[in-house]
Amino acid sequence: MSPAAPTACIIIIGNEILSGRTEDVNLHWLAQALGEMGIRLRESRVILDDEAAIVETVNACRKRFDYIFTTGGIGPTHDDITSASIAKAFGVELARHPDAEAALRAHYGTERLNAPRLKMADIPRGAELIANPVSAAPGYYLENVFVMAGVPVIMRAMFNDIRHLLKGGPPLLSRTLSAHVTEGMIAEALAQIQHSHREVEIGSYPFIKDGRLGVSLVVRGTDGAALEKAAEEIEGLLHRHTQAVAIS
Amino acid sequence: MSPAAPTACIIIIGNEILSGRTEDVNLHWLAQALGEMGIRLRESRVILDDEAAIVETVNACRKRFDYIFTTGGIGPTHDDITSASIAKAFGVELARHPDAEAALRAHYGTERLNAPRLKMADIPRGAELIANPVSAAPGYYLENVFVMAGVPVIMRAMFNDIRHLLKGGPPLLSRTLSAHVTEGMIAEALAQIQHSHREVEIGSYPFIKDGRLGVSLVVRGTDGAALEKAAEEIEGLLHRHTQAVAIS
Repeated sequence: MSPAAPTACIIIIGNEILSGRTEDVNLHWLAQALGEMGIRLRESRVILDDEAAIVETVNACRKRFDYIFTTGGIGPTHDDITSASIAKAFGVELARHPDAEAALRAHYGTERLNAPRLKMADIPRGAELIANPVSAAPGYYLENVFVMAGVPVIMRAMFNDIRHLLKGGPPLLSRTLSAHVTEGMIAEALAQIQHSHREVEIGSYPFIKDGRLGVSLVVRGTDGAALEKAAEEIEGLLHRHTQAVAIS
Repeated sequence: MSPAAPTACIIIIGNEILSGRTEDVNLHWLAQALGEMGIRLRESRVILDDEAAIVETVNACRKRFDYIFTTGGIGPTHDDITSASIAKAFGVELARHPDAEAALRAHYGTERLNAPRLKMADIPRGAELIANPVSAAPGYYLENVFVMAGVPVIMRAMFNDIRHLLKGGPPLLSRTLSAHVTEGMIAEALAQIQHSHREVEIGSYPFIKDGRLGVSLVVRGTDGAALEKAAEEIEGLLHRHTQAVAIS
């Protein structure tokens, strides 16, 4: 694996995820987007809209990973406390950002730009804005912490706005081999293959499809030739047990 | 809110979630199941199949929450390192559990019970088993840490096996009021309602449906009468802006 690849952590801020009201879909989308850029997502946390939880989590994670992405809690209502909490985590003040105010004014018009909407222009001092082409209220980033909306369509637009700022790593290639073989049948031989191909990482993921157990074996690595060699050996292993091996 | 309600944390162990290969569905299901039992899910973490990450995360979380639930990494292959890591976190040895071995022998038969499958009977010393009616290999719990499979159908069966061991709290009631009103229009009045109804928690969750912005206002609490009063005020607030308010 590539030790030089940048690392990331995603912090999902939202009572509604933990209460079971809303199913988060941002983690999976961001995991795929980061993976394609060669950025290694190392951890994700889902936390409450709670100042102490946000401050503690952001400060613990921003020292350990190259990039932190947060989603949720930057709207106009009383339970949107992400910005105040991020400011506290960094020990800076919230300050009205003129470009954020201008974007909101252009979107709402002066008459409809009331106090709660203006609150969305209060950004931790020193942060740079992230554009929100959907509903104007911006995200922002401060050092390595990127603060984005929770609504998926807005979060995705914001991520697309910051892609060019992120330093990717060597792309992580992968090959998946799936068959209706159970893990226990191949575990010993598979461990041998992993042992003799240390430059790739082999994951084994069981599934149940049409009531039958199967397994997807995923080889990942940055060296295409090494990946091919390991994948060929895995294909041979699976073919010793079944004719039908799906490769993707 | 109820300070006496037990708290929980879910730890999802799996490279495949963080790589974007697999979309986790266990968090949402468990969040709903715990919510129905009156157990407050406070945090969730997704971590790698990495011994140091598992040991550190489990030890940090098990002191802070009443219940810890882990999913993933208890199968027979080389990348299934959850049990060894949990044993290390607790400072105990892995030991062959006779009941787990018996369950595996009954499921596979002596002939097919090879070394990797037997590995699934190696459980941290002192743990109690959790039944796996799908594929025999058990989960287990040690103090307040419940270790379950990652395959959703197995995880759900395991959780159902341990439900009776979990002490619930007062049920968290909720009322949701949704309308095509934007958050900024109602944020000030909503903050007032929250301010005068401190015994409930009011969350505001924007959505985009058919290209139109809307908001779901969710009132949560353990006191049904207080919940009704706050919900009525919110309904009145929304009706000042639109006829169509959906209540659930």
